[in-house]
Formats: sequence, C-alpha cells, structure tokens
Amino acid sequence: MTQVSETSGTNLQIRLAARPKGLPRDSDFQTTEEPIPQPGEGQVLVRNLFLSLDPAMRGWMNEGRSYVPPIGIGEVMRGLTIGEVVESRHPDFAPGDIVSGVLGWQRYAVARGKDLTKVPPGVPPTVALGPLGATGLTAYFGLLDVGQPKEGETVLVSGAAGAVGSIVGQIARIHGCRAVGIAGTDDKCHWLTDELGFDAAINYKTAQDLHEEIRRACPKGIDVYFDNVGGDILNTALRSLALHARVVICGAISQYNATEPMKGPSNYMALLVQRARMEGFLVFDYQSRYAEAQAQLGRWLAEGKLHHREDVVEGLENAPRALLRLFDGGNTGKLVVKI
Amino acid sequence: MTQVSETSGTNLQIRLAARPKGLPRDSDFQTTEEPIPQPGEGQVLVRNLFLSLDPAMRGWMNEGRSYVPPIGIGEVMRGLTIGEVVESRHPDFAPGDIVSGVLGWQRYAVARGKDLTKVPPGVPPTVALGPLGATGLTAYFGLLDVGQPKEGETVLVSGAAGAVGSIVGQIARIHGCRAVGIAGTDDKCHWLTDELGFDAAINYKTAQDLHEEIRRACPKGIDVYFDNVGGDILNTALRSLALHARVVICGAISQYNATEPMKGPSNYMALLVQRARMEGFLVFDYQSRYAEAQAQLGRWLAEGKLHHREDVVEGLENAPRALLRLFDGGNTGKLVVKI
Repeated sequence: MTQVSETSGTNLQIRLAARPKGLPRDSDFQTTEEPIPQPGEGQVLVRNLFLSLDPAMRGWMNEGRSYVPPIGIGEVMRGLTIGEVVESRHPDFAPGDIVSGVLGWQRYAVARGKDLTKVPPGVPPTVALGPLGATGLTAYFGLLDVGQPKEGETVLVSGAAGAVGSIVGQIARIHGCRAVGIAGTDDKCHWLTDELGFDAAINYKTAQDLHEEIRRACPKGIDVYFDNVGGDILNTALRSLALHARVVICGAISQYNATEPMKGPSNYMALLVQRARMEGFLVFDYQSRYAEAQAQLGRWLAEGKLHHREDVVEGLENAPRALLRLFDGGNTGKLVVKI
Repeated sequence: MTQVSETSGTNLQIRLAARPKGLPRDSDFQTTEEPIPQPGEGQVLVRNLFLSLDPAMRGWMNEGRSYVPPIGIGEVMRGLTIGEVVESRHPDFAPGDIVSGVLGWQRYAVARGKDLTKVPPGVPPTVALGPLGATGLTAYFGLLDVGQPKEGETVLVSGAAGAVGSIVGQIARIHGCRAVGIAGTDDKCHWLTDELGFDAAINYKTAQDLHEEIRRACPKGIDVYFDNVGGDILNTALRSLALHARVVICGAISQYNATEPMKGPSNYMALLVQRARMEGFLVFDYQSRYAEAQAQLGRWLAEGKLHHREDVVEGLENAPRALLRLFDGGNTGKLVVKI
C-alpha cells in the first residue's frame, strides 16, 4: 500500500456489497476510493491507523435491527479504529492527537468531536483497542458486574484465547477465582495456562467428552460461565452449573455464520434446578464507568498482572479475509488490522 | 370410597410402578393397601384429606437427580397434602389439628412434627394448598423476588389459567403492572380477563401468529415474562422482551412428557440484545419468608383482590388420571384430589 499524503490522495474504503449467507465471501465486500473528506465546523479529519475486528461485526452485516441498526448495503463497514487527527475544526482536538472512534473500514474519516475519544500519550494503539478498549471493558464489566464472581469461585470462559476471553480469565484470577478456559487448539490452551495463569484449559476440539472435561476442571461446579460462543459449548456448560450460578452472555460466535436456525440451549432448565441466572449485556451501557475501569485495567497492565496478545494483519484490503479468522479459530488474542 | 375408621382399616397408597415414557399411563402406577402405620415417639399420624397435584411431580417420576432425588420405583408417590391429625406423640400436635406436609399419595401417613405445618383454623384445605400454600408462595416469590416488577411495567405469564399463573397475573395487577396471560382455551382467557382482572389474554392454540398477538397485547414489550411452559411459547416470548427484561423460569410443562430431546430457546440471544436476564428459582429457598408472604396473600384474599379456583377430583384412586389434566390443559386453577 502506498503512503497517502495528508492533503491529497484518495480515501480507500471497504463497503458492504451484499448480506452474507454463512461465512462472508469476498463478493460480500466492495472496495471503493473517494476523495479524502473535508471536516466541517466542529468536525475532525482522522487518518485511521488500526481497525479492530470483532465477532459482533458479523451480526451487523445481517438484515434486521439488533441492538444497533444493520450496516446498509453500500455503506462503509462499521468498525472501531484508532487514528491520528489530521485536521481539526473542533477546539478540543489538534493535528497529531491519537483518537479512537467508530470510524469504519476506511483510511480516512470525518467525525464530530463528541464521537471521538482521545488516547492518552504513550498508550500503544493496539492496547487502546485491546485491554484498555472495548475488548478490555467488555471483559471487565461482563465478568465483574454481570458475573459477580466471589473469591474462591470457579469461572469458566469459552472463546478463552480470544480478545475478551483471555482478559476475562485473568481478571477472574486477580479476583481470587479458579479460572478455566475453553479454546480450540492445544497451543491456545498452553498459552492460557502457561502464560496467562489460567488454572486449567480445555481443547474442545479434541475433547472426548466435553462435559466430563468440564467436570474435571470445575470439580465444585461452575459459579460463573462467561459465554462467547453459544451452541453446544454453552449447552454443555449448563450441565455443570453450581447452585446460584451466573451465566454471562457476551456472544455466540459459533452461531453467527449459521445458515440453519440457531440452536437454543436445551439444558436451560439447569437455571431452575440450580437457581441460576443467564444474563446478557452490552459494554456501551457502562459508558459512564469506562474511566474507572480503564484506570483499573491500566494498573493491572502496569503491574504485569494482565497480559495481552495482538494478532496484527497488515493492510486494510486484507480486512475481509482477516475477519474470517475470528470464526475459524485462526486468531489468538486481539485481532486488528494495521491500515 | 368407604370411610375408614381412625383406629382400624387399611392405608390405601399409590406407588410409582415404572418410570413413564411420555405421558404417565395407568401401568406406571401401583395401588397398594397396608395396615395404617403407628406413630413413634415425636411422630404424628395424619389422615390425608386433600392431595395437591403439581406439574413438578412429572419430573420426580424420571430417573436422575434434579433439585430433589427421583421417586424410587415402588415408593409411594410424593405429594403435598392437607390432613387431620389422628394420633400424636409430638407435644405440638393434637388430634383434630389440620396440618400440611409432603405426606404422599396415600390416605394415612406418619410424619415427624418438624415436617408438618399447622393450617390455621378457618382456612379451607384447598386455600391452604392453593393461594396460601406452595402455589401462592411460588407465584409470590417468583414474580416479586425474581421478576421484580415495577409499577407500569408489562408482565406476561404463560400457563396463566393454572394454579400459579393465575395468581402471578393478579399479583402483577395489584403491583400496578399490565398483566397479560397466555392460556389454551377461550374459556380460560375469559376467566383471566373477566374475573381475575388480567388486561389481556391470548389463546395460544387458536392464535394465528403468537408473536404478533404478544406484540399487540404487550405494545411496550415484555418487562417480566413468567414462564410455566417452556418450548415454543417461551421461545416466542423472548422475541418481545423489553430492555432489561426479566424472564422467570418457574416450569416447562410443555416439555415434561417429551420423548424427544428438549427444545432449547433458540432466541436466547434476545437476552444480550435487550440486556435481559433469565433466572430460575425454587420456592423452597424462601422458607424463612413464608410467613411474611402468607400474611400478605391472606390480606389480599380477605380484601377480595385475589381470586382463586379449585378443580377438585374425588377419590385418591383417580389421582393418576387426574395428573394428566395438568398436561392436556384440562384444569383451570388449582388441581387437587379429595381423598
């Protein structure tokens, strides 16, 4: 990719061309080039540096309103980015500021000041998108506020080697819980136990009997199950809930590309037998407490208690293919595109 | 049935003969006659007057531990009864006292004093088993503690013409909520709206499109869904949850006789989209607060705010067939057997 000067050149964009059936294909995306937009009064022109790739994006590509409207056909793909202010007509921002916002799969974006957040100097962009960004905040509020783990309890997390899951397990450990992860390769499992300090990890792809392995890894039952994947893993985990367990619904990545009707958790009556609850959440609802959480996550990072890994893909044009890695288990840690 | 004298005669009992496959059949039960048992020190002999028939009984007939152990093959069927003390070797009980306890499908039972609760004089046995018994307590704690309805919210209840459901809707009304019931006949629906004061009732068997009918009856969405039935109705209700809705899992009567694997609620991701929760409970966990709830339920009964209906089947020998009425929609209100 050639370097575009700040004042000339074009804006490379990736747009939604068609609603995918199953896994997104190249033909579901369209690459366009436009003139670099000009900021109006109160606006800021940002050159995007890194794009966060998240499982939720797959849902936004579908028809039908969810918690946000779907991405329209022909619209620039929605996505969280970190970028550098190139031109500002807003008093709070100056060229050179590093900012984050939902600026889309494109090289340049114009945004209103109020839709941007400044990234403090010294914070690497991948950290700002990862443990200190929506990823870390999702893990933090989902586990602590929704899951409410208590010292000595057992926390099981699926998608444990993913961006959110890997932080969930570490926060569980910091809170004195037994942390057990479910992931899809032995390498990921070793990363969880050997580098991140998980107490146990289960490779669900090679497990003879996932239920038995969960029981072995969670001998006192599961007090908090943080679910990123849905499907059979969720259903199996329900069988091992402890009394008054909390099931945190963060995502259902195994189902996002399903072309058949979604499978429901047929073992949901475990919620009655164990007087347990299952609860969904969205990180956006905690906006007023982001600063508190970021301060805490920052302290844990500085103290070396929280580790993170990025999976960096080079080039915006590779984003559509890179997105697929979230669904085939290809990434470990936070998946980002360097634009 | 002939009247058995207090000191002679035999004890008619209905026992579990085989674990039912699907709906229980006559051959799954066995009738036995035994000598009337004698109370030991600290025990009480009770002549059962009324037996409560409850959907949960079907679950107790299955293999495998749930929140209580299964009824063993050859054991007297488990069940809550109201009876009269015939002989007492416990200081707190005297002949003539009316008591309730889990005394089983039999004419006589011996129980320890601590397993019996006295029914206050003047409370009819069917009221003691219904609105002031486990039924009313289940509705009370399930709706108020788990569902936490707030004034002006919409409460949807399935199995609404059943013993628990009919009380749930009325308590919702008392708390200033919009109460909507789902039931299986037009007569039941009329009873709900015309006599119990529900704001709307839906006959799910004749509904062209249950989802549409729920939307019409709950135009602002469902804030509390109290589920007694599971299956398709639960799954459909999930589509209309309001933000921060609470789904109370009380039972899954549509699934108790299923011979195929249970269906899970495939729309459970509504919990994430609406930041909602689904929670199970068991009334036994609230034992320390029964008195408080009974006092409140008693006040509402006395004030005419709470109506109830009993469906009384005559004769213990008819209990096995009567149980089926819970599953074919045959009963309205509380189903009891007069022994």
